[in-house]
Amino acid sequence: MTQASHPGVSLGQVETRRVVLFTEDDPLVLESGERLAPVEVAYETYGERNADGSNAVFICHALTGDANAAGHHGNPDRPGWWDNIIGPGRPVDTDRFFVVCPNLLGGCQGTTGPSSIDPATGRPYGLRFPLFSIADLVTVHRALAAHLEVPRPLAVMGGSLGGMQALQWALDHPDDLGAALIIASSARLTAQNIAFNEVARRAIVTDPEFRDGEYHEHGQPKYGLSLARMIAHITYLSEEAMRAKFGRRFQDSPVARRGFDIDFQVESYLAHQGESFLNRFDALSYLYLTRCMDYFDPFADEADAVRRLHECRARFLLVSFDTDWRFDTRHSKQILRVLQAAHRQVSFREISSAWGHDSFLLEIPEYHRTIHGFLHQLANGNGQQNGVIHR
Amino acid sequence: MTQASHPGVSLGQVETRRVVLFTEDDPLVLESGERLAPVEVAYETYGERNADGSNAVFICHALTGDANAAGHHGNPDRPGWWDNIIGPGRPVDTDRFFVVCPNLLGGCQGTTGPSSIDPATGRPYGLRFPLFSIADLVTVHRALAAHLEVPRPLAVMGGSLGGMQALQWALDHPDDLGAALIIASSARLTAQNIAFNEVARRAIVTDPEFRDGEYHEHGQPKYGLSLARMIAHITYLSEEAMRAKFGRRFQDSPVARRGFDIDFQVESYLAHQGESFLNRFDALSYLYLTRCMDYFDPFADEADAVRRLHECRARFLLVSFDTDWRFDTRHSKQILRVLQAAHRQVSFREISSAWGHDSFLLEIPEYHRTIHGFLHQLANGNGQQNGVIHR
Repeated sequence: MTQASHPGVSLGQVETRRVVLFTEDDPLVLESGERLAPVEVAYETYGERNADGSNAVFICHALTGDANAAGHHGNPDRPGWWDNIIGPGRPVDTDRFFVVCPNLLGGCQGTTGPSSIDPATGRPYGLRFPLFSIADLVTVHRALAAHLEVPRPLAVMGGSLGGMQALQWALDHPDDLGAALIIASSARLTAQNIAFNEVARRAIVTDPEFRDGEYHEHGQPKYGLSLARMIAHITYLSEEAMRAKFGRRFQDSPVARRGFDIDFQVESYLAHQGESFLNRFDALSYLYLTRCMDYFDPFADEADAVRRLHECRARFLLVSFDTDWRFDTRHSKQILRVLQAAHRQVSFREISSAWGHDSFLLEIPEYHRTIHGFLHQLANGNGQQNGVIHR
Repeated sequence: MTQASHPGVSLGQVETRRVVLFTEDDPLVLESGERLAPVEVAYETYGERNADGSNAVFICHALTGDANAAGHHGNPDRPGWWDNIIGPGRPVDTDRFFVVCPNLLGGCQGTTGPSSIDPATGRPYGLRFPLFSIADLVTVHRALAAHLEVPRPLAVMGGSLGGMQALQWALDHPDDLGAALIIASSARLTAQNIAFNEVARRAIVTDPEFRDGEYHEHGQPKYGLSLARMIAHITYLSEEAMRAKFGRRFQDSPVARRGFDIDFQVESYLAHQGESFLNRFDALSYLYLTRCMDYFDPFADEADAVRRLHECRARFLLVSFDTDWRFDTRHSKQILRVLQAAHRQVSFREISSAWGHDSFLLEIPEYHRTIHGFLHQLANGNGQQNGVIHR
């Protein structure tokens, strides 16, 4: 591709709306058979819906995201988590697309989750909140799409856990999306991925302040939740990126102060990440959403997955980043292999970037050009070449 | 090399001895200038010392090792941590060599460390124990060697933190060793290495049971110390090894039980590693020894290191393992580069092994043949070829 990058502009101020999508009379029926109600969803939309809702791009967020994908809530210096990719003239062009981003089921930024009030007790659900699956996240997304009169989004897209939702949507409702953009994602966590998730959860549940999930009157299990975030951040950056960003440099002094306090810059970075997380994320949501990822395995019965995907008219874009060691390119190639076995239209691109898993959140020109090109070809209806694979 | 592997036999029952090497009248003077006394050292020896002690092989253990490197303490099923490499007919052949292995300064298996009694207070040192360096570990090792009438060991060897001590010995006392065997080690932790150490330490110190290091009357900070060990174990195994060993298999059932209890086999493995660690390792030792590794940077002034190594008559063997991502081959190559700049005799070997950092503890035929060949050539005095590099 040769077109220039698409910096575009930011959306400016936006706001989160809320809607109750499932009620006692019409509860959310989970994949497990359990029922949950009410389910309220916080979401944002950007751009204008066209007459039949066919210009909708549905954004699925990653583990700790929220509905504020783009624009800001009053402070332009604190834009949404994917503001660099969504906006007028940006790769997800709000001059052309109607962009929808909800907070996930089980989350903690406005959508019903384990720290929401359980109507049966008047107290937060805690660990009584039902375990849910990626398919359940998609069920709620589709209820929101229906509410917004979007019967078939042009595209469903997301990075990491977000990409899992796009893949599940294509598997469960193969006719009900135009394309799935699956970025830095996976169809199956490895033992090492699960190990990191498990250590993070242990940090949370063994913090005495977790109180078996009944911490709401006392405050979060701050040490455990910070540790979970610090562990995760090690896996989000490549070794090379950490080397370039921090190396062995010291924080407040050109030489080592030598002690157990924060001394190396990388320690200060992790401490900051751990601490700032406490203000915006909930410990129970962390448990539920990581566990949801662990159990995700849509190709466990691969023949069945191939059969289901065979019916799917959607196009697929797979993107991986060469230094991502949380979900390395092999994860994307596994998805590619199954989609090809089902004779789907797949574009696959491994992007070179120093920044590891975090890359999917960054403004990397080749990556943004790829997203822009794919979405605009899709909207122009001229992206029908089969199996174009860029490596 | 074409010779067969050397399985040899186990030493059988052995015992740990103890000796006070530094006293109030003759204290250990640390690199920082601080003084410490008494310093008692627990150690084991295997094989017979020859007349001038020139057949000694000095073993430096890694982060959580102890003096029981080989043989057993009554239960043959629980041999020492390096029993597969040390013994009659084994690569470190006790029919030929006098093998010495002490517990490290700062450790918790008989050598003075932060949970030892401070004679000034009659209570454990806790965080009043002085911070020490790899050079200080070597100072204590050399005092033990002198006590055992070993003025110049034939070889000093160790894996991981153990290799750092061998390198430091060569830098600080270039005439006082015949060879340094530096295995799966590093001359400089990366930002990512430090990050993992720091998260492990945070897990310990933020456990309320840590009590600012005054936990001795109450028991260890068990949750924090277990977490530290779980995090470390993720880095000891390669991703591939975890995949082969556990994959996504479940623990007690062919299918997922779906919940927050241990379900995947890899979770059970980590929980076991975390729990069993509590019975054998001390939380304060973990803090001190990891911090000692973070600050190790003997090539910070590289010109000075080259100058010092230029005086060194020792031979060097560097071994790395191709799937070790804690200290990957680049760490060994950095040491190689500096040794070559100093025109030292270096053999370097990258061994192929699926098992990651743990490989240095395993019986891998090519690895054991390399150690055997190097030590026996050294002892035969016919290992004088310069700069033989195997890749």
